[in-house]
Amino acid sequence: MNLKIALLPGDGIGPEVIQQAIKVLDAVAEKYKHTFEYKKASVGAIAIDETGDPLPDKTLKICAESDAILFGAIGDPKYDNNPSAKVRPEQGLLKLRKSLGLFANIRPLTTYDDLIHKSNLKPEVIRGTNFVIYRELTSGIYFGKKELSEDGKEAFDTCKYTIEEIDRITHLAFKAAQVRRKKLTLVDKSNVLETSRLWRKRVAEISKSYSNVLVDYLFVDNAAMQLILNPTQFDVILTENMFGDILSDEASVISGSIGLLASASIGTNSAMFEPIHGSFPQAKGKNIANPLAAILSAAMLLDHFELYDEAEDIRIAVEKSIELNITTPDLNSTNHFSTTNVGNFLSDFI
Amino acid sequence: MNLKIALLPGDGIGPEVIQQAIKVLDAVAEKYKHTFEYKKASVGAIAIDETGDPLPDKTLKICAESDAILFGAIGDPKYDNNPSAKVRPEQGLLKLRKSLGLFANIRPLTTYDDLIHKSNLKPEVIRGTNFVIYRELTSGIYFGKKELSEDGKEAFDTCKYTIEEIDRITHLAFKAAQVRRKKLTLVDKSNVLETSRLWRKRVAEISKSYSNVLVDYLFVDNAAMQLILNPTQFDVILTENMFGDILSDEASVISGSIGLLASASIGTNSAMFEPIHGSFPQAKGKNIANPLAAILSAAMLLDHFELYDEAEDIRIAVEKSIELNITTPDLNSTNHFSTTNVGNFLSDFI
Ligand SMILES: CC(C)[C@H](C(=O)O)[C@@H](O)C(=O)O
Ligand SMILES: CC(C)[C@H](C(=O)O)[C@@H](O)C(=O)O
Repeated sequence: MNLKIALLPGDGIGPEVIQQAIKVLDAVAEKYKHTFEYKKASVGAIAIDETGDPLPDKTLKICAESDAILFGAIGDPKYDNNPSAKVRPEQGLLKLRKSLGLFANIRPLTTYDDLIHKSNLKPEVIRGTNFVIYRELTSGIYFGKKELSEDGKEAFDTCKYTIEEIDRITHLAFKAAQVRRKKLTLVDKSNVLETSRLWRKRVAEISKSYSNVLVDYLFVDNAAMQLILNPTQFDVILTENMFGDILSDEASVISGSIGLLASASIGTNSAMFEPIHGSFPQAKGKNIANPLAAILSAAMLLDHFELYDEAEDIRIAVEKSIELNITTPDLNSTNHFSTTNVGNFLSDFI
Repeated sequence: MNLKIALLPGDGIGPEVIQQAIKVLDAVAEKYKHTFEYKKASVGAIAIDETGDPLPDKTLKICAESDAILFGAIGDPKYDNNPSAKVRPEQGLLKLRKSLGLFANIRPLTTYDDLIHKSNLKPEVIRGTNFVIYRELTSGIYFGKKELSEDGKEAFDTCKYTIEEIDRITHLAFKAAQVRRKKLTLVDKSNVLETSRLWRKRVAEISKSYSNVLVDYLFVDNAAMQLILNPTQFDVILTENMFGDILSDEASVISGSIGLLASASIGTNSAMFEPIHGSFPQAKGKNIANPLAAILSAAMLLDHFELYDEAEDIRIAVEKSIELNITTPDLNSTNHFSTTNVGNFLSDFI
């Protein structure tokens, strides 16, 4: 297979972890005789520095012309605590999602037996956890009308959803449930929000076409508890944009390291793959960042093109590195390896 | 002191736990020579059954004429999964908050050494956790304009905040921080929301008048992680209505039992005290519900009227019951006591 992959390394540790992901993808390409063509483009704080724009047109063009996008991380301390800065790195990410119509953010969560002790939750609580969050990514309060009044004395944000926006991700989530453990949990706040009531109505309606999937409904406040009280109850979690942002970050604590968690953002014509961790500026350039989340994001990319054996090879290599403790300091306090070491081990192993 | 207390037991286990709280309040009244006058009124599903209205005018009047309100719980399974029911128990609670202007919801969270093993989080993670959440309760997306379009194909909700709404709870939260460990964490999503940017601006401004308080800012997704990764970092958490709903329920898992957690909802002229647990319909009438959250809510009521010794007596009694294992089945799987037993022990102890 021939794949054009746009590389958006971004800020902080982004470039370092993306470099390891490429190493691993190249090993896969060689083994399976694929051709992966990369095109690098800038996004985030580094793009602001270079062009004044967190998502330059050139980057958007490269993304639109590629089969898939591999994204590193964005964010720079100079923009923190300055929420009113006119131009911010996050705007690049939000615009990218919106422009490419990446409406479904997919975040799988599993545990690794060899790392189960790293979690703040007790092993018996998290053992066997295996769920995936489907978060709506291009609508809701993120993209609704928002305004600060002229006198600066009041502000509003609007959360809006149409049934088209709800339906398309709901179908994806049901399809995922069908090939998993056949359970879907809708998380909403339908006892308070009109948009949530619309979500609940559509999901109930659509569930009729997926009669082998069990549907469960949770209010978001309860879901925030259940993720910690009983994480193994979940299979596919479906939710709107803001709730998905909060719950997927919360869920990341189950695994014991955010450095392990990958994500895909899928649209009709584009697909982007990205570790869920941030740009971790303190670690930049130190060769200590955990590349596994970026590498597992590359595996999700391969899955997306139905290169299942190839993706599985990566996952097996990752499991091996964890088993052998060939891991970065976040997972391995005594005998740790560098970002590059881990990437080399994995690409050699494949 | 003479206090008029409106009793709103509500649904499910509400009446049972409120009864124990009264027992304990009466013991305090006798010991300290206070007079507590109670007036009972109906709210929630039971009020719908009786009058068609989840918050009858009569109830609102009794609340408005009282010094404080002691609230049980609301909710009945017959309204679950029927989010489009025209009349719902929750509406009673939301209307009560709005009508009485209960703008600050205050939820303290501490751990008890004797119960630390009950939590799904590891003891070394949660030991020493002691924070309080200040959640804005009468504005934001709960009370903004919301609408379903006529054709039923789209819906919206509006999150709105004015600086008056932000300022009044921010001052309360800073004052709380001043008599605690002098740290305040604002949780918002100011990288995305206009309302959050207004919150951040006001809090930064107001913080200048509380220069001995350290101010920290967290995005809500990160806060949802930090509560589990490092809960002892928090002292006072300040946040808007919806984020507060989610984070305070999430935080409840730290303690190991939601049956221990009390709350206060404070306005300019009214104050309501309520356990954070729900109506737990499965336990109704079985004399197994944990009354400690309701009883600790009564202690918060006493604190509100500066009856600090009285409140402390209740807390000491509660700690004693936990130490002696005189607790309900949720805390005590082998040798447990009934709701009434626990109430009796506490009132005798005082
Ligand atoms: C950076 C921020 C705008 C973004 C979001 O809120 O969507 C991030 O938290 C995420 O989850 O990808
Ligand atoms: C019952 C519901 C409307 C309410 C809320 O969302 O505020 C509850 O979850 C709470 O936190 O008191």
